[in-house]
Amino acid sequence: MLTGKNQIGTQQIANGKKTYQTIDPITNTANPQLFIEATTEEIALATSLAHHAFASFQKCSGESKAAFLNGIADELLALDQTLLDMYCLESGLPKGRAEGERGRTVGQLRSFAALLLEGNWIEATIDTALPDRLPLPRTDIRKMLHPIGPVVVFGSSNFPFAYSTAGGDTTSALAAGCPVIVKSHPMHAGTSELVASAIIRAAEKTNMPNGVFSNLNSSGIEVGQQLAKDPSIKAIGFTGSIKAGRALYDIAAARPEPIPVFAEMGSINPVILLPEILQQSNQVWAEAYAGSITLGTGQFCTKPGLLIGIAGDDLNTFAQHLSEAIEKVVQTSMLHPNIYANYNKNKTLLSEQVGVKIIAANTAKLETNFAAPTILRIDGKSFLNNPTMHQEVFGPFSILIACENIEELKSIISNLEGQLTGTIIGTVNEITHHKDIIEVLKNRVGRVVFNGVPTGVEVCPAMQHGGPYPASTDSRFSAVGIHAIKRWVRPVSFQNCPDVVLPLALQNSNPLKIMRLVNNQWTNSEI
Amino acid sequence: MLTGKNQIGTQQIANGKKTYQTIDPITNTANPQLFIEATTEEIALATSLAHHAFASFQKCSGESKAAFLNGIADELLALDQTLLDMYCLESGLPKGRAEGERGRTVGQLRSFAALLLEGNWIEATIDTALPDRLPLPRTDIRKMLHPIGPVVVFGSSNFPFAYSTAGGDTTSALAAGCPVIVKSHPMHAGTSELVASAIIRAAEKTNMPNGVFSNLNSSGIEVGQQLAKDPSIKAIGFTGSIKAGRALYDIAAARPEPIPVFAEMGSINPVILLPEILQQSNQVWAEAYAGSITLGTGQFCTKPGLLIGIAGDDLNTFAQHLSEAIEKVVQTSMLHPNIYANYNKNKTLLSEQVGVKIIAANTAKLETNFAAPTILRIDGKSFLNNPTMHQEVFGPFSILIACENIEELKSIISNLEGQLTGTIIGTVNEITHHKDIIEVLKNRVGRVVFNGVPTGVEVCPAMQHGGPYPASTDSRFSAVGIHAIKRWVRPVSFQNCPDVVLPLALQNSNPLKIMRLVNNQWTNSEI
Repeated sequence: MLTGKNQIGTQQIANGKKTYQTIDPITNTANPQLFIEATTEEIALATSLAHHAFASFQKCSGESKAAFLNGIADELLALDQTLLDMYCLESGLPKGRAEGERGRTVGQLRSFAALLLEGNWIEATIDTALPDRLPLPRTDIRKMLHPIGPVVVFGSSNFPFAYSTAGGDTTSALAAGCPVIVKSHPMHAGTSELVASAIIRAAEKTNMPNGVFSNLNSSGIEVGQQLAKDPSIKAIGFTGSIKAGRALYDIAAARPEPIPVFAEMGSINPVILLPEILQQSNQVWAEAYAGSITLGTGQFCTKPGLLIGIAGDDLNTFAQHLSEAIEKVVQTSMLHPNIYANYNKNKTLLSEQVGVKIIAANTAKLETNFAAPTILRIDGKSFLNNPTMHQEVFGPFSILIACENIEELKSIISNLEGQLTGTIIGTVNEITHHKDIIEVLKNRVGRVVFNGVPTGVEVCPAMQHGGPYPASTDSRFSAVGIHAIKRWVRPVSFQNCPDVVLPLALQNSNPLKIMRLVNNQWTNSEI
Repeated sequence: MLTGKNQIGTQQIANGKKTYQTIDPITNTANPQLFIEATTEEIALATSLAHHAFASFQKCSGESKAAFLNGIADELLALDQTLLDMYCLESGLPKGRAEGERGRTVGQLRSFAALLLEGNWIEATIDTALPDRLPLPRTDIRKMLHPIGPVVVFGSSNFPFAYSTAGGDTTSALAAGCPVIVKSHPMHAGTSELVASAIIRAAEKTNMPNGVFSNLNSSGIEVGQQLAKDPSIKAIGFTGSIKAGRALYDIAAARPEPIPVFAEMGSINPVILLPEILQQSNQVWAEAYAGSITLGTGQFCTKPGLLIGIAGDDLNTFAQHLSEAIEKVVQTSMLHPNIYANYNKNKTLLSEQVGVKIIAANTAKLETNFAAPTILRIDGKSFLNNPTMHQEVFGPFSILIACENIEELKSIISNLEGQLTGTIIGTVNEITHHKDIIEVLKNRVGRVVFNGVPTGVEVCPAMQHGGPYPASTDSRFSAVGIHAIKRWVRPVSFQNCPDVVLPLALQNSNPLKIMRLVNNQWTNSEI
């Protein structure tokens, strides 16, 4: 069923010579299909098609874009077992996860379709003329959001569905009216080809312009670099490492016309364990965190990588419960041999630092790419003085920091880099008492979690997924939830425009029946 | 009354050795006051104070920030004639303009105060818990906008009040909860010192933390560079040239932690003259444009620098009316001898290009810094083939392009760089007929003006002031109107947070009585 070719608009093309294969991490063997890397000409064709598609796609109604997105969801579901099998084969993730992530992806597509059908997201703002105003009359001015242009999306390694080919970046960009070119993740080239075929079928069935979507194969960095430099490309979405995300950001910032890059990168997601709660419910939190640290083999960007408490008996008991729970975890495969090798390398590096003690290392099944869940312990001062301990270790790994006192704990929080999440475990009494810790934490993160685990990113309007650098390159936007659409739009004003020429969203009769800010009052009435 | 010192928080400090003076462009002589450039240590003190002020300023209520902004407006008005005289002395602009721009600045301050008192701008978004949801329960998640951190604002040359020390960037950043450090424009150091003193008086009267505002003197680029590189600074606002704006953008993008730069830079603001309207009302538009091109000695970022029509008798008549009106304009002084010298250099460069004809040059009063309003004419092909003709000439200058046909006109529009504005002059009939031109224009600009002039930027919610690069570095935001506040904020989510610990805007009882998106429905009810 796979072709190994690039999907460039409606065509499957592969004139390149460079090929690569994906890997089944469970068996540690290459999968049979050869994928052909996109050539310079093929990349240029994809960007040219996207540029031309933008001229008509930007004018599509909310209804027709919604039909397109719902169509993608339907086509993904129609691929059924074929798609789920490919996902598992290329990622080593279990079938339950494949089904869950497909559900999330389909849900994202449908929620953006609903957003388009409702239509309020366009932020229609109208100030009507005041011809008699003194000293000068005011002209009629109307503003709405307008798509920014063709977008490039880089597929992620850890979410082959939800943050990849038809994931949140692609879905929100298409919803905004921006054509999308996906640079598929080399580890999931087959999954990406299948998903791309679903998108193209939906595009054809709903009469979208050719070039509204393309999917390019790439095993190195050259395809991504060429895409990022192409003048037709107006924004980039990326999920992955700080190194790769920053490299893309630097390319985009150095262009003659700089473009925004929404890179969702590294995060160690600190967790603060306050003393009182550890007296009351120590074991339940230790077990919850053993689960959160090892969920999906620790390959989530919101995995808690840092547990920070006050040294003492309760923290020691917590450490013991945590270690016991970690030792009981059933080991699972990592996504790829390279990720597995990096995990072992980084884990070893941090384990060998001054003052570090390994308090849990579940090494029952050290075969192929099955990672050993590991917990280190270190005192606050040693952590503060050693930048190596601050780096993210991607995998089922966390560090328990035993601080001398609350002041040292606060000092650790304020010295952290930007994070996606920060968590506080405490009784309501001590959380209220330590409001200052929340203030410090709030300035370092995008989401503050109370008495819970940071893994499990709910797709809902109130979700903020993105934090101060290096958690993401632009903390002012979320990669998850309906507000993710704001990354791909810019406002355009129309001054003294004849009603008949205005976009429907701004016409006097309010034909779309949307909420509009008219003379600084929200209303869905006509003018 | 002036001291020439830097205003660093509540202190006036000047330990530097480097001094400079402002110039009265009308008499072409230096004004007496010596201004002392900020030293490395003084800059570091200002950023450190801003960093510490942020800890408490971010927690200020809307009411207290509104009192601060209204206080600034009151203190500006209290400076009365002293301030207006300084403005005129340092800019050469007439008293009427000084009063008008002060009114605009005071209006901006009061409109952001009103925004804070209303409170809806915070975008409170709440998704309540769904404990019985299957397969997994949903936790309570609540999101609101949070200030990004200390902001540096670079004063502009052409709006000593409205886009400078207490201008739109400063006002919107303070409204967001971000401390501000102004690098004052060297040409208006005295005006800036007076305005800064008003801001500090208001800050003290309304109990703002020390460091919420500072004003630094600087005659070169070093102060701005040090500010842009300082880790405490989290965003930059700038109004000025493409060269300076891009240099700042490059510094900010190269930081270990990159920060957003909102630079509002160059724009030639194309105007399309459709044929039918030139048959009907030729002279009235020629006269309106003579006024718009020369308003404020052509020193507005929205000055129409390009008039594009179809060659023929009507365009010739328009050219003649325009030339006659330009010859009648009363000449006025430019802001500064350097700006005047640049104007003459650039005007001469463009006048000497192939195919260019000078059709108006009002040289009645060529003394000191009084600019000669000038119009060039060129055919479409010569314009398209010569990039030199595409550059902005800051001053009372415009180019009339005579195209062969509508296709050539469209080709010129699509080949333009990003612009703040694009204007269409036409009958409703021909505008409706040429909707495709509007589509092309819309993708190049932030604001489309119909049958009007682009100068005169109304301060209202529907205004978009900012366009695709190089008009501005981030077309997704406006520098004018209440939505300018969005540049200085990022969303923060609170998951499963005890009600008593939540910010007021997100608490169940809705104590601020604001509009909130609760479970995807807008409401101002409690939960």
